[in-house]
Amino acid sequence: MMKAITIQDIQNAKNRIDKYINQTPVLYSHKLNEWLGHEIFFKAECFQKVGAFKARGACNTVAWLIENNMKPDLVVSNSSGNHAQAVAWASNLFGILSSIYMPKNVSKVKAQATASYGANTIFCTDRITVDEQTELAAKDKGTYWIPPFNHPQVIAGQGTAVLESLNKLEDIDAIFAPCGGGGLLSGSLIVARAMSPKSEVIGAEPKNANDAAESLRKNSIQTLNSTPDTIADGARTLSIGELTFEYLKQLDDFFEIEEEDIIYWTQWLSHLLKVRVEPTSAMPMVAVRKWLSKQKSKKRILVVISGGNIDITTMNKIWRKDFLNNIPSLAS
Amino acid sequence: MMKAITIQDIQNAKNRIDKYINQTPVLYSHKLNEWLGHEIFFKAECFQKVGAFKARGACNTVAWLIENNMKPDLVVSNSSGNHAQAVAWASNLFGILSSIYMPKNVSKVKAQATASYGANTIFCTDRITVDEQTELAAKDKGTYWIPPFNHPQVIAGQGTAVLESLNKLEDIDAIFAPCGGGGLLSGSLIVARAMSPKSEVIGAEPKNANDAAESLRKNSIQTLNSTPDTIADGARTLSIGELTFEYLKQLDDFFEIEEEDIIYWTQWLSHLLKVRVEPTSAMPMVAVRKWLSKQKSKKRILVVISGGNIDITTMNKIWRKDFLNNIPSLAS
Repeated sequence: MMKAITIQDIQNAKNRIDKYINQTPVLYSHKLNEWLGHEIFFKAECFQKVGAFKARGACNTVAWLIENNMKPDLVVSNSSGNHAQAVAWASNLFGILSSIYMPKNVSKVKAQATASYGANTIFCTDRITVDEQTELAAKDKGTYWIPPFNHPQVIAGQGTAVLESLNKLEDIDAIFAPCGGGGLLSGSLIVARAMSPKSEVIGAEPKNANDAAESLRKNSIQTLNSTPDTIADGARTLSIGELTFEYLKQLDDFFEIEEEDIIYWTQWLSHLLKVRVEPTSAMPMVAVRKWLSKQKSKKRILVVISGGNIDITTMNKIWRKDFLNNIPSLAS
Repeated sequence: MMKAITIQDIQNAKNRIDKYINQTPVLYSHKLNEWLGHEIFFKAECFQKVGAFKARGACNTVAWLIENNMKPDLVVSNSSGNHAQAVAWASNLFGILSSIYMPKNVSKVKAQATASYGANTIFCTDRITVDEQTELAAKDKGTYWIPPFNHPQVIAGQGTAVLESLNKLEDIDAIFAPCGGGGLLSGSLIVARAMSPKSEVIGAEPKNANDAAESLRKNSIQTLNSTPDTIADGARTLSIGELTFEYLKQLDDFFEIEEEDIIYWTQWLSHLLKVRVEPTSAMPMVAVRKWLSKQKSKKRILVVISGGNIDITTMNKIWRKDFLNNIPSLAS
């Protein structure tokens, strides 16, 4: 029923956004590769505009609207995180006003960042009100709602991160990315299937926010009742979307990650790569380690470091306990 | 009396080490430039081998020894920090054994990192014993001591960071670097005077460890009695050296930095640049801000991010209080 998103859609997205976004570097750690005995490449989207891959999807959607003579007077969105900043940044880039609806308990630094990209920030009592208000605002004439993941052009934009990577890296055995609403994973899957059919595509979400895993198990979209308690704030979405669900079903594997393991890899990735890695981005490493421990030959894998935005509360949670004493290995 | 280090020495160092070290990127933050109204370029030595510029001086010294038929059987050094890792790494690179003397209270992650580069690590009761033991070991036949800063080839190696930067960046009005023992600043000064005479070269050290500032004021080397209490662990050296003192005297300005200001910029640089910035590396930004606030026209400046190695105790000190609520500006 829904029109499938194709590799051409993602190539078109790349052509649309290339001059606005950063071609982020691919990083690696000799030490980590030595310890694990495999080759791991990290697409560092923490160096993307607004500090996260979300800039890709937002930029593509706005540019696509303009290309199709649908330039709105106002863009709205509902997010407290990286998508909010991305929509604010992308709208501003094309001279369009934006209003971002956020829960009132959003961290000051995130609200400030969104406002600094020129958005009007509107604070609501809770996440449910945020969603209601956004839907209401989106009904106004000339207003366009850019949702965080369940939109073909958002997914196509997010797919460009892996597209860029596979243009540079050959012979990748598996691609790992975190799962919030599933936009990044959906885009990555479409690219991988077309460009590198042998690459497995594997997702990871917090065990404490495992609506995607539950949805895959029950073969219908499951929704969390309330904001889940996980340090991976980019994966606190209450449910995946109808569109992303179709792609998530095609993943080769999916892992549910414990909080302590997320923190372990957040410490280690920032220590080894010397970049700011948000917990959501470190999560796939737990899946990487589990997946690699089952492999019989040396593998080359790609991990998308989705972003590098961390508020001080999260920073303190990350560094509460010292995991750097315990060197990564494949032995359990 | 001492033979001056020349730009040719630094060019030779670059030729010697280029194939072993990383050509680190130059980063910038659009937001920061917008807020301060100037252009700031950051040479990101956190992406250097061992995570700090120290790899340059150690690598150059070992390569220079070999080039001059003085290849030692054993390299020794006294350090608890980045220089220890650098000497361990550089010796190992050329198949030479190394012994690193460290105070026994060194953080486990730092000792572990040094050992992981193949060094023999020896723990002493305190910093003074560390120095005595190193001096004693260095008297053995076939043993060579690579000191952390007071050595022409160490200084020449450190100078290559700014040499690389000035090969890429034109029209730089000022260069800022942190001061521990003064090796990085000395090398930077020699390069700047030769390649970009209009560039001011400016140092910064913690007010709590201001032996260099005191030495400059009294025109003789002053030594701290005990390890100073500063979060900038790369600047805890008790005194500068005779060699570096001669170059530090030629600096255009020198700033003593308060602890809270160091932490403020550690938070902001890692937030804006998305890289791991150790407190020592953030320190020059306080000097940058003060220097810029006196300028009447738009300036282009270079800041050397000296390294990105941070242990968990320091990490917790950095993120205790939230400074990200307070956006950088030149207004006081």
